[in-house]
Amino acid sequence: MKNYITHDEWCIVENSFHPEHNEITESLMSLGNGRMGQRGNFEERYSGKTLLGNYVAGVYFPDKTRVGWWKNGYPNYFAKVLNACNWVGIEIRIGGEVLDLHTCEVEGFSRVLNMKEGVLERTATVTLSGGKRLRIHSKRFCSMVDDEAGAISYSITPLNFEDNISITPYLDGNIRNRDSNYDESFWNEIHREAGTSQAYLTLETKQNPYGVELFQVATGMCFEIKINGQSIDYQSVPTETEKYVAATVDINLKEGQELTIYKYAVNLSSANYKREDLLEQAKRYIARISEKGFDQMYLEHIQAWAEKWEKNDIAIEGNVAAQQGIRFNIFHLGQTYTGEDERLNIGPKGFTGEKYGGSTYWDTEAYCIPFYLSTAEQKVARNLLVYRHKHLQKAIENAEKLGFTDGAALYPMVTMNGEECHNEWEITFEEIHRNGAIAYAIYDYTRYTGDESYLTDLGLEVLIGISRFWKQRVNWSEDKKQYVMLGVTGPNEYENNVNNNWYTNYIAAWTLRYTLDVIGKLWTEDSRKLNEIILRTSFQLNKELAEWKHIVENMHFPYDNDRQVYLQQQGFLDKEILTVDDITEHRPINQKWSWDRILRSCFIKQADVLQGLYFFEDEFQPEVIRRNFEFYEPMTVHESSLSPCVHSILAAGIGLKDKAYEMYVRTARLDLDDYNNDTEDGLHITSMAGTWMSIVKGFAGQRVKDGILILNPYIPEQWNSYTFRIGFRGAWLRIGVSKQGVTVENTSESGVNMVVKGEEVFVDAHSTWTK
Amino acid sequence: MKNYITHDEWCIVENSFHPEHNEITESLMSLGNGRMGQRGNFEERYSGKTLLGNYVAGVYFPDKTRVGWWKNGYPNYFAKVLNACNWVGIEIRIGGEVLDLHTCEVEGFSRVLNMKEGVLERTATVTLSGGKRLRIHSKRFCSMVDDEAGAISYSITPLNFEDNISITPYLDGNIRNRDSNYDESFWNEIHREAGTSQAYLTLETKQNPYGVELFQVATGMCFEIKINGQSIDYQSVPTETEKYVAATVDINLKEGQELTIYKYAVNLSSANYKREDLLEQAKRYIARISEKGFDQMYLEHIQAWAEKWEKNDIAIEGNVAAQQGIRFNIFHLGQTYTGEDERLNIGPKGFTGEKYGGSTYWDTEAYCIPFYLSTAEQKVARNLLVYRHKHLQKAIENAEKLGFTDGAALYPMVTMNGEECHNEWEITFEEIHRNGAIAYAIYDYTRYTGDESYLTDLGLEVLIGISRFWKQRVNWSEDKKQYVMLGVTGPNEYENNVNNNWYTNYIAAWTLRYTLDVIGKLWTEDSRKLNEIILRTSFQLNKELAEWKHIVENMHFPYDNDRQVYLQQQGFLDKEILTVDDITEHRPINQKWSWDRILRSCFIKQADVLQGLYFFEDEFQPEVIRRNFEFYEPMTVHESSLSPCVHSILAAGIGLKDKAYEMYVRTARLDLDDYNNDTEDGLHITSMAGTWMSIVKGFAGQRVKDGILILNPYIPEQWNSYTFRIGFRGAWLRIGVSKQGVTVENTSESGVNMVVKGEEVFVDAHSTWTK
Repeated sequence: MKNYITHDEWCIVENSFHPEHNEITESLMSLGNGRMGQRGNFEERYSGKTLLGNYVAGVYFPDKTRVGWWKNGYPNYFAKVLNACNWVGIEIRIGGEVLDLHTCEVEGFSRVLNMKEGVLERTATVTLSGGKRLRIHSKRFCSMVDDEAGAISYSITPLNFEDNISITPYLDGNIRNRDSNYDESFWNEIHREAGTSQAYLTLETKQNPYGVELFQVATGMCFEIKINGQSIDYQSVPTETEKYVAATVDINLKEGQELTIYKYAVNLSSANYKREDLLEQAKRYIARISEKGFDQMYLEHIQAWAEKWEKNDIAIEGNVAAQQGIRFNIFHLGQTYTGEDERLNIGPKGFTGEKYGGSTYWDTEAYCIPFYLSTAEQKVARNLLVYRHKHLQKAIENAEKLGFTDGAALYPMVTMNGEECHNEWEITFEEIHRNGAIAYAIYDYTRYTGDESYLTDLGLEVLIGISRFWKQRVNWSEDKKQYVMLGVTGPNEYENNVNNNWYTNYIAAWTLRYTLDVIGKLWTEDSRKLNEIILRTSFQLNKELAEWKHIVENMHFPYDNDRQVYLQQQGFLDKEILTVDDITEHRPINQKWSWDRILRSCFIKQADVLQGLYFFEDEFQPEVIRRNFEFYEPMTVHESSLSPCVHSILAAGIGLKDKAYEMYVRTARLDLDDYNNDTEDGLHITSMAGTWMSIVKGFAGQRVKDGILILNPYIPEQWNSYTFRIGFRGAWLRIGVSKQGVTVENTSESGVNMVVKGEEVFVDAHSTWTK
Repeated sequence: MKNYITHDEWCIVENSFHPEHNEITESLMSLGNGRMGQRGNFEERYSGKTLLGNYVAGVYFPDKTRVGWWKNGYPNYFAKVLNACNWVGIEIRIGGEVLDLHTCEVEGFSRVLNMKEGVLERTATVTLSGGKRLRIHSKRFCSMVDDEAGAISYSITPLNFEDNISITPYLDGNIRNRDSNYDESFWNEIHREAGTSQAYLTLETKQNPYGVELFQVATGMCFEIKINGQSIDYQSVPTETEKYVAATVDINLKEGQELTIYKYAVNLSSANYKREDLLEQAKRYIARISEKGFDQMYLEHIQAWAEKWEKNDIAIEGNVAAQQGIRFNIFHLGQTYTGEDERLNIGPKGFTGEKYGGSTYWDTEAYCIPFYLSTAEQKVARNLLVYRHKHLQKAIENAEKLGFTDGAALYPMVTMNGEECHNEWEITFEEIHRNGAIAYAIYDYTRYTGDESYLTDLGLEVLIGISRFWKQRVNWSEDKKQYVMLGVTGPNEYENNVNNNWYTNYIAAWTLRYTLDVIGKLWTEDSRKLNEIILRTSFQLNKELAEWKHIVENMHFPYDNDRQVYLQQQGFLDKEILTVDDITEHRPINQKWSWDRILRSCFIKQADVLQGLYFFEDEFQPEVIRRNFEFYEPMTVHESSLSPCVHSILAAGIGLKDKAYEMYVRTARLDLDDYNNDTEDGLHITSMAGTWMSIVKGFAGQRVKDGILILNPYIPEQWNSYTFRIGFRGAWLRIGVSKQGVTVENTSESGVNMVVKGEEVFVDAHSTWTK
């Protein structure tokens, strides 16, 4: 836990310079716009602790797999999010001395991420070795409107001297991924040019033996310089070296004069432009935004953010830390994925770091989709589903590599392009419940939006592929006279290669059941469409349906009759049953215990049985949920950032308000307080959605059932009130919850039927309902 | 299966050059003497496929661990057997052209490993690009007498020309381990000198951050040259470059003249000499052996081998392939470990390759010790036990790293110096049955030799450490009201992280029981010694004995009442029960199936329940063994080289003679026929002992019970007769088994009590018993 970030409702504030935490702050203050992102690095050179990071959405490199011992079936590469050309750099020399906050005295430092506006601003007064003092002030953003561009305003003012100032805005492609498996550079230079006040650098990913496409990224920049707000004449001298382009301007600056550099940059990827046009497009883009100018870009950018906040803000009164925490999470989710491009997804670190690589985990389906469903246009969540449909063929090939046949689909644990990247057998091959989450998301989307077109146009094919996988993955146990599923890893990754993980068995049977339902419904409602799908998937209607039905009816679900709880897996009760209170000094166990000790203990990393009860809440009585919660939660160490939110929501649902709040707090400021000592690697983007869910689904009890939006809100006693916004089937609502009661304000043109605290209400367009 | 090796009773013969199999042949024709070893590389340069390999016993390098995903508790390094300075090299130039069998025409090639003499001999007639023909003849050995030295006689004869021949015997330290984790060289040069007809090179292992000692190896050589057997005058010109020393002699050689180079080399290790003396000792050693001369060294060497064969030969009549196979195995075991040095052990590849690194696996205790017990002086097996006692403290530290306390000892899966090297969690942390095999070997040694001194002087401490580990590793299951052992990998590594592996539970309970027995016996017979051990191990007599007893009496052993077989592990019967005949086209499954598929299948890599029934045969009725054999063997794919031998012995014991022979054949020529396509990496040294056991314990039914040697021999119908030699408590016996009957010839001074085919007999010194 670090407490150097000042609590503030809208801003992330570092009020004095903490070089020891600089990489953490860089993560926290990352900017993005769904197409590109940039860590909170300094513009000027910095020789202290820093992780320079600039990421271009969808651009990756297939890094050769590194393992100790190869297992058959391991993927050949791990797709790494690519750290790309540094576009923010501006080198400053004062009388020949490089400005570097690591080597000079720094006062009056502040670095502020204004989340309302999506702007990073920095102020400092520095004293150079010779005693020269100057003020720095920078401001930058990744434009939400011109979403392949960023703009920087960078000012310096001599406070006690007059001297020659040399300014070198540059683009530097000599960047390596810190997590490269073999310490390789992933980029080749394709083209570079440095001209007057502008420069361009095109890089291409290195050749690879895996047939993965090469990406080109053209980075361009131009700049202008003003003194005291007035344009001036100056000479710009270009420089070029390997993967580096720059232009230098020398200016004599008088005491008190403020020199401002406006730097405009773009990152265009060959995923979006023809290779041969890339450079030309970059030049045009640069010309367009520099013509528009910093102030206009800025205005448009903050307007776009205002529109986003209108849809997704949560305001909390009575607790600034909680307020800051939730806005921080919403902000980063908003700038990581905008839903504009169905080829993109939500990487575990978004644009804030490169660790873990890949862009897509089951986190997207299990945690992120509910957030985007409620806080963005319908197409945003839909595009996340389309993404998986586009990868269906790869999922079938992935299953084939593991010996499955006949169109069975296993979606990868980690992927960029649909191919599996992860390489631990107990995860890659066995943590197959991910497949169920992908099916569940189709259900979740359809239930929330009422839009059945995805389901029938694309989703059913995905469901058939996943169902076929489950069918082949279970086997009949002669011993049990039931279907069993052997050798899996459940969501609780502190168990590996277990038999009959209740959650996996449940979600498998549920997928089969849901697919059967969907096929049955389509049979009645649109048999022509069904026939098309049958043809496309070579579906053997009678045989496959009968097999699935038999599995649904005869699946084994481990259960303890004495305690009346579901067993996380076969044999769970052979363990020594302890609670986390028994091992206080051993936590976190993933740092203090060897893996075997973790595995044979009863301790749970993240919700497993409870994850199932959360997903399928409607299928269980509250007392069943409560009994299982009370059995499992005390054994849960929550060492996954994805764990507390599920517990918070379940606890809220069964009236355990203290527990619900405790779990909420645990997730809300995870990165802001660097709870796990790993924020320097980047932020836990996907688990941020869980925090949002803890409030909206937990405290406010948001559900959708039979097309009706349900709310069952209460106010945590630590707060005075909270207000959140959600969209539901065309309506946009602002819901306020205070100690006095609940207000639902419909800010849209569509009325909405709801059940609030058990009461059926209709909230008309532009009207407010209060109780 | 490759069949290019000619069948021969005493020799391994490559009758025409197979460059495509050269690395296999190099493995097969490796030489060693327990202190050093050398693959069957050519002396002259060879630009074709080759793995140059020279290994010095006990010299290793701690190679930084390489994994994909780090798990807590992984060791920092993997100790790699070190590929050391090439001492066999002799470069030959004829009129400026380098002699290289890869680039010239080769006829009349033969490469022969004479196992009776321990000599590698090679003949070839080659034609150089210009048409010059010459004959090569080389002969070399690693002396069993001067066991840090090797000697080479290398001859060339021009057949159709006269020319200048340039001869450069050299030492080359520019050698890398092919299995280096990070493609690093592991050696630094410390000293080099090249003089007249001799040269020295001292290398030292590179610095490491793990506190592992650095080794120095001084390699020295000298040579003499004769023509037609006559000494001649010649000039030798020394050369030195980085890690390379040589001396070149130019001689004009006439057609038909035979030039012979005698090269003498030594490898002295700092493990055996003071660093500061190393070079001087190497020079003295070289002086001594070169004075002795090639012929005398050779005579002494073959005499030493004759003495070895007198103790360990097995002669088979009626099947040359079987004869060659068993002698090949005995030969390699004999040259890998001589028992002279209790710091050494039996590496999985011996001196024939570097793959897998490490020197010690549980193979030593489970497979090799019975071989050495019967075929060598008692001290040889004893030194293998002493080796583990020397590592007891490290085993305790190893257990501490995994959270065990109070003197619990977990011996490593793979080690060189007592520290764990292996880094797969399911093996390193969970394949803990290895600990049981180490306890079992103490029992086995004591039973065979009747020597209780190891047990009471050193062994009991080891047993206490291992027993303490088992005590802490089990836990009480409230569900079963028994002790369970969760999260283990049994000998069948095609199951990972299972609960209640029958074999592991059994050997754990057995260890506790045996340790209790030993303590009980010592209590009565030598309470003073017991008290010393109690003090040394801080043993809490009453408490620990009571705890162990409770575990022995309440351990859970999974069992199927219907089939009346032990269950390999909890839940085994949930699997789809198939036999290997059902998956013929899928074998070997370790190459064709992904790991998860292997894990959830019923297929067994190597004996598991059956390994236990083999070890503890006396505790089970034959019908129990037969029932379990008939249940498990049909599911066993024998994809470990250690598997067939155990099945062969069990099958022989229960009268399944065809199965016993089938399993014998599978193990006997594993490397000679390159059955697993991996002989090029080196030989399967430890499993060779299993082949010996298949004959002696299997076909001949050798057992020891209550101090009596038992034989129950039969003759496989494929053979006419077989004769093996064993030692037993001071007596040396030659046992012949033919279709006619059994002959026991006592070749020693001590009489021996035996039970042969159920009949009690006393075979007096120098007498023969026949039936």
